[in-house]
Amino acid sequence: MRPLEWAEIVAVGSELLTPSRIDTNSLTITSRLNAAGIRVRAKAVVGDRAADLAQVFAGALRRADLVVLTGGLGPTDDDVTREVVAQVLGRTLHEDASIVEGLRARFARRGLPMPDANRRQALVPVGATVLPNANGTAPGLWIEHGDQLVVLLPGPPRELVPMFDTHVQPRLEAMSGGVRLYSRIVRVFGRGESHVEEAIRPHLSSWASASPPIEVTILAARGAVDLYLNVAAASEADAAAVLDRAADEAVASLGDDVYSRSEQGIEEIVGTLLRDRGWRIAAAESCTGGLLMGRLTDVPGSSAYVHSGVVCYSNEAKSALVGVDPALIDAHGAVSEPVATAMADGIRQRTGAEVGIGITGIAGPGGGSPQKPVGTVCYSVRTPDGAVTRTRWSTGGRELVRAIAVHTALDMVRRMMTGRPVP
Amino acid sequence: MRPLEWAEIVAVGSELLTPSRIDTNSLTITSRLNAAGIRVRAKAVVGDRAADLAQVFAGALRRADLVVLTGGLGPTDDDVTREVVAQVLGRTLHEDASIVEGLRARFARRGLPMPDANRRQALVPVGATVLPNANGTAPGLWIEHGDQLVVLLPGPPRELVPMFDTHVQPRLEAMSGGVRLYSRIVRVFGRGESHVEEAIRPHLSSWASASPPIEVTILAARGAVDLYLNVAAASEADAAAVLDRAADEAVASLGDDVYSRSEQGIEEIVGTLLRDRGWRIAAAESCTGGLLMGRLTDVPGSSAYVHSGVVCYSNEAKSALVGVDPALIDAHGAVSEPVATAMADGIRQRTGAEVGIGITGIAGPGGGSPQKPVGTVCYSVRTPDGAVTRTRWSTGGRELVRAIAVHTALDMVRRMMTGRPVP
Repeated sequence: MRPLEWAEIVAVGSELLTPSRIDTNSLTITSRLNAAGIRVRAKAVVGDRAADLAQVFAGALRRADLVVLTGGLGPTDDDVTREVVAQVLGRTLHEDASIVEGLRARFARRGLPMPDANRRQALVPVGATVLPNANGTAPGLWIEHGDQLVVLLPGPPRELVPMFDTHVQPRLEAMSGGVRLYSRIVRVFGRGESHVEEAIRPHLSSWASASPPIEVTILAARGAVDLYLNVAAASEADAAAVLDRAADEAVASLGDDVYSRSEQGIEEIVGTLLRDRGWRIAAAESCTGGLLMGRLTDVPGSSAYVHSGVVCYSNEAKSALVGVDPALIDAHGAVSEPVATAMADGIRQRTGAEVGIGITGIAGPGGGSPQKPVGTVCYSVRTPDGAVTRTRWSTGGRELVRAIAVHTALDMVRRMMTGRPVP
Repeated sequence: MRPLEWAEIVAVGSELLTPSRIDTNSLTITSRLNAAGIRVRAKAVVGDRAADLAQVFAGALRRADLVVLTGGLGPTDDDVTREVVAQVLGRTLHEDASIVEGLRARFARRGLPMPDANRRQALVPVGATVLPNANGTAPGLWIEHGDQLVVLLPGPPRELVPMFDTHVQPRLEAMSGGVRLYSRIVRVFGRGESHVEEAIRPHLSSWASASPPIEVTILAARGAVDLYLNVAAASEADAAAVLDRAADEAVASLGDDVYSRSEQGIEEIVGTLLRDRGWRIAAAESCTGGLLMGRLTDVPGSSAYVHSGVVCYSNEAKSALVGVDPALIDAHGAVSEPVATAMADGIRQRTGAEVGIGITGIAGPGGGSPQKPVGTVCYSVRTPDGAVTRTRWSTGGRELVRAIAVHTALDMVRRMMTGRPVP
């Protein structure tokens, strides 16, 4: 078989062509293929029409070394992937007795007979290897075809992902001759995509001429920017030699705005800082309405350092739950630095947590004024080392304003706990 | 031109083939095409290679009445969409003087000369109509080709969406002869996808033979199931005549498990119930860590009925913030119905809100036991009319367990406030 350099991914299922569904499997598959040194050349979504799938699959075979198809392996007439792939590859299908046996056993464990329709799932193109599915009835297929490779996997992510990791990835890595894609990530908060690009521009030519050469990708989402440095290398050591130095250079250029040098999000970074220090955190949230606590508690084991939180959306609740003086709200408004400070101090005092956060703002779409437009958010963080209170503005609608507010507050905690100034 | 029944969407750009980027434009376009009575037959993402795009575009032209291409209209050599489309359609490109003028003026407004590279954006295939771009330099193109239609739009959503709405959608609706797609949605919580299918099965044949015929789609996500009923009709009245009756039949078959008959989510449905009754809600959350409050406050204007919430992740916080007796936790464990009840009662008493919710559970991955496996969640809701406490289990990992828990709690509130039994 030729070296697997380029892959295409074809997702099958009419439901993926509606406005409310998206093919996320291809992202999972892409990241795993990239890790094995294989890049994705194109991807497609097709419905349940056999003729359409046959055209799209044949097109992918014209370009790619490897075609991964997902979905359409169920037991019903709508599930055409097996039949179409066999037909395009010019192979006949035969019933695999061990699959039938496995299906029967699976149904028997639930005290049910195997419906006749499921026999379709035991059809295998001649010469294909069956990939077992521990979490469903549809087996996967691995088909080496001339010097190309075709892999079929079921659509549900909870079936697909473990199958890819257990049965596909190890085979691909064995075939790749050891060349894999290695990456470093530098995660930035506090400056936009173009300012990140500007900061790293002086390094770009030396990175591009490194051996192996470094490929740079910059992705911006929800107020944060991720800088990816990628190389294809024969070993971790070859990759590390160039990547670690480049990542150091990027971090030096981006300075205090770098919050993470791994896939870890700001909630994990702050969690680790708290855990290391033996501190606990508590938050009083108004406009973010619990999302900051929700984000902190996304992390398994966060109960070790998340003390508690209060969502005080109403003025009354700000007073009742964290003791904000109603006179302060009258004097400065609920969205004001003094109220944010009182919220941070109040939650800290009431809970005994070392770190207290107060957030109050106008997420919109209503509630703005010329003085305090929609997107205005006041933050206060108090730790045993000191307190910081800031006002920030963001745009982009209610959801984005709230997401950026959560990141901003957690990033303030990071900067304070690592002795960095808070701009 | 033939009636536009089927469309394909092709997104162009190598960045869309990385693991962290997804083509969301196609969802926006799909929902607008559907509204114009046009369905999407397949979609594709290709990189910046002209030969690949030519193959994929030619394939789409073989199947679809309308092909929408997005991206690759910038000024650089990587931007190949214009050239490839012209070549596949067999049309020459000429420079459009009015586009050049517009680009010059755009740069002049910022005091800059137009870079020479941007002249590429003024290239137009013979016979194409130029679609102005109010938010960027890349104009769109509308190309009627024989009895087919090809539309090119820039990739950035803030350019694409207004261009689609201003220049594409009105033309499509004029061409569709007034036929549009109309939908009804019935949203269900408390039974799985296959049980929804079973419940509506008796109606399927009469729906399919209605005039116009009703097409049914069932989508399951995060523990909830959405049933879509769609028809292509010449008027709202024609559609309503069959859709409203079918929706009534679906609701009758699905009973109390229907929580919404519109796009409104459970947080909006509960919000409306609270607002109508003049009640306020407060929650004490443990395993959901603020996500329930975050969901309730996703709704603009929710401050009218969201009183406040407390995230009491630690046992200590459960006692300090909502007054749960530590002896109760010792006797029954933090994840238990008595503790959930004490949390609901405690938050209600401390805040004076009419509706109190308590949630305590094991989101995982750690913390489970044979008696209380990961995914066990105890819920308690108290309203002025009474109290309900339940234990439920779900699987699928920490994120899914937490999302389902939020929906479960809000759905309990809905059932109680509408006089329905809570199973």
